Amino acid sequence: MTAETVCVGTEILLGNIVNTNAAYLAGQYAALGIASYYQTAVGDNEERIMAAIGAALSRGSDLVVINGGLGPTQDDITKDCTAKLLGRTLYEDAESFSRIKEFFGKRGSSMSANNARQALVVKGSEILPNDNGLAPGMFIELKKAESKKFGSEKKQYLMLLPGPPEELRIMWEKYSVPILRKLTGSVIYSAMVKVCGRSESEVADILDDLITNSKEVTVAPYAKTGEVHLRVTAAASDEKDAKKLVKPVVKEIKSRLGDSVYTTHEETSLEQSVVDLLLANKLTVTTAESCTGGLVAGRLINVPGVSEIFKSGYITYSNKAKRKIIGVKKKTLQKFGAVSAEVVKEMAEGVAFYSRADVSVAVSGIAGPDGGSEEKPVGLVYIGVNVCGHVTVKEYHFSGNREKIRNNSVAHALILMRQCILEYYSRLTFGEAEQ
Amino acid sequence: MTAETVCVGTEILLGNIVNTNAAYLAGQYAALGIASYYQTAVGDNEERIMAAIGAALSRGSDLVVINGGLGPTQDDITKDCTAKLLGRTLYEDAESFSRIKEFFGKRGSSMSANNARQALVVKGSEILPNDNGLAPGMFIELKKAESKKFGSEKKQYLMLLPGPPEELRIMWEKYSVPILRKLTGSVIYSAMVKVCGRSESEVADILDDLITNSKEVTVAPYAKTGEVHLRVTAAASDEKDAKKLVKPVVKEIKSRLGDSVYTTHEETSLEQSVVDLLLANKLTVTTAESCTGGLVAGRLINVPGVSEIFKSGYITYSNKAKRKIIGVKKKTLQKFGAVSAEVVKEMAEGVAFYSRADVSVAVSGIAGPDGGSEEKPVGLVYIGVNVCGHVTVKEYHFSGNREKIRNNSVAHALILMRQCILEYYSRLTFGEAEQ
Repeated sequence: MTAETVCVGTEILLGNIVNTNAAYLAGQYAALGIASYYQTAVGDNEERIMAAIGAALSRGSDLVVINGGLGPTQDDITKDCTAKLLGRTLYEDAESFSRIKEFFGKRGSSMSANNARQALVVKGSEILPNDNGLAPGMFIELKKAESKKFGSEKKQYLMLLPGPPEELRIMWEKYSVPILRKLTGSVIYSAMVKVCGRSESEVADILDDLITNSKEVTVAPYAKTGEVHLRVTAAASDEKDAKKLVKPVVKEIKSRLGDSVYTTHEETSLEQSVVDLLLANKLTVTTAESCTGGLVAGRLINVPGVSEIFKSGYITYSNKAKRKIIGVKKKTLQKFGAVSAEVVKEMAEGVAFYSRADVSVAVSGIAGPDGGSEEKPVGLVYIGVNVCGHVTVKEYHFSGNREKIRNNSVAHALILMRQCILEYYSRLTFGEAEQ
Repeated sequence: MTAETVCVGTEILLGNIVNTNAAYLAGQYAALGIASYYQTAVGDNEERIMAAIGAALSRGSDLVVINGGLGPTQDDITKDCTAKLLGRTLYEDAESFSRIKEFFGKRGSSMSANNARQALVVKGSEILPNDNGLAPGMFIELKKAESKKFGSEKKQYLMLLPGPPEELRIMWEKYSVPILRKLTGSVIYSAMVKVCGRSESEVADILDDLITNSKEVTVAPYAKTGEVHLRVTAAASDEKDAKKLVKPVVKEIKSRLGDSVYTTHEETSLEQSVVDLLLANKLTVTTAESCTGGLVAGRLINVPGVSEIFKSGYITYSNKAKRKIIGVKKKTLQKFGAVSAEVVKEMAEGVAFYSRADVSVAVSGIAGPDGGSEEKPVGLVYIGVNVCGHVTVKEYHFSGNREKIRNNSVAHALILMRQCILEYYSRLTFGEAEQ
């Protein structure tokens, strides 16, 4: 089954709102095993709304989900356009009308004619109640003759939903999903593999055959700062069969990318994976940040329950703060400069010592736009991680503006923390085996 | 002039990302006086990308802005599709190639064949450099014969932009806008008024007549966490006339909203306005954060040049850290709890004392999902600001998830800082006048 989304609303075309409905519906289609190839947004204009719905039907989509324009104002004309396009009429749905009347009664206000318009529905449609608002939705099965007008020979459906996300989502989950489950038959299953510390092109090279060739199972990469998320998806007649297709591909990806895979859980973030590692090994953690100015700590503290292992962190922006608060030596600062492997090493050692933490991370770099030199250009960042006295310092060269350099620094601080903790424990295990 | 947006990327159609580019571009068109009637999103599929661009041209749009699919992976085919649709070829742009090569050289890694592909551009296009990434953009003026294929008799243009928002926006502002300014002829002038500490509905009520009725000058509000940005726009035959229309409206907004207006400069952020205030009054600043875990400092340090006044900051997440590092009394913690006006007051006082800063901000709250009680529910946050010994503490009740509560706390910490510094100096001035 294929679906298209048509979003109606001039506020979308003026950039006043971000079209989150399109993303929500897209995710829902994927979860239902419905393929979707097009999304369209149009303003509150009769000709263009009709053209957009007509184009979607002409492309042979099985289902067109139209949202927005069901409200009470004069420019809400989605129902009128749909009816006109199909050659049907509108009528007042008694149940919707009494719900709207009741709503205003409860508020002690009277119902305006505009509000009553919301009870109008397209003839022959199945009504989807609005449990979080006033305008009902509609599910319409096209007659053969209606589809023929758009050059389509197959069974086609329209679904009309309200624009406000909180109304649309409840209606979709409660009323649309059961209808579509019945129609589709096939089930989709998808898994997530999250990778850190490798670029998108590197991952794409390693998984080239899986991304390009796979037909039954699709592997779609999506790049985030310092990370690549891979969605692995398959469709089958039931969930068990779909899972069976996905599982070996996830296993193959994990074996090719090794430790770079930090989770296969949809909801686990990179900072969560670092905090999980710390919690599992009962390691407390602290931070000493210069150019990232608290953002590494900020991400760690994004994880609920982090208070077990994170007690304090330091933003040591000036040289004096580096010396006085976390004990970086004056001589080291003078000899190598604040942005140097040597200073970052002392930051990582000092902050762990003063806050009695097992693990520490230190960051110092030149985020720009000023402060760069030929020898130390903007984008040069040093990150140091101290795991129980073993310090690793790495040099990075990031590009982009101040914000991008800082975001990259934060992501790579988390990535290096994860890597160093893993290495420390693998060394430990190796050491034990030797004895 | 009319423009359409075509967004390319399977991740949009799978619902993995929200299409913020479409909203950004829509707002930009509006600001440039360009009308836009359609937005389309398609996946990384040759046939459908070509169909979407073709449909936009066939509808007679003057400009089609295509974004996404310029990256290094096999499924990035936007350029190939554009060239094929127009019957043009691709060639390797020497400058783009050397930029990409230089990028990998700096990182000490070699350039893969996939990365080299990013230097390919459509023949006959004007190249838009990518100052925040690798893939260049393109501006293409269609030949008469090319437009004719799509049934259009007018001059048409294509613009190809990268998908990552931070690359797209910089390229757009720096290279696309000047090109479009030349094309549109009529000049648009828009001013920005940024408001903090008032809700969107509050601002909308106060400016109701300006937002609803104005025809020559439009006032469009856009809500951000803790802020409302108002874009005031007018079109005229030259910039002077357009400015003349905008100016009195900006003045009126400022007089109605008073001190809540923190800037009328497009590029000034809330944190920049706080840092400017501190710099202007030669005040050093420090931070003591609990639930926000470094994010307030992180935003302040986003401002270039902040090193003049920000030397150090503290993340005191545990009670012990609050006591040992910034001198909160054990008794106060025991009697009132870590999330209390009393503790936040001592945090603000203590951190200023220990770091010898003129101004300090302290935050303690319950960001959830756990840790709430009937008396102190999730979302309760105290923010304290100390300006030269004058401490103000405010209680806030934020709703939403952990992330939303933290982001609101950060924004309101900045807002309260600004307010307290302004009040301190207005009191001073008042006191001086009295003498």
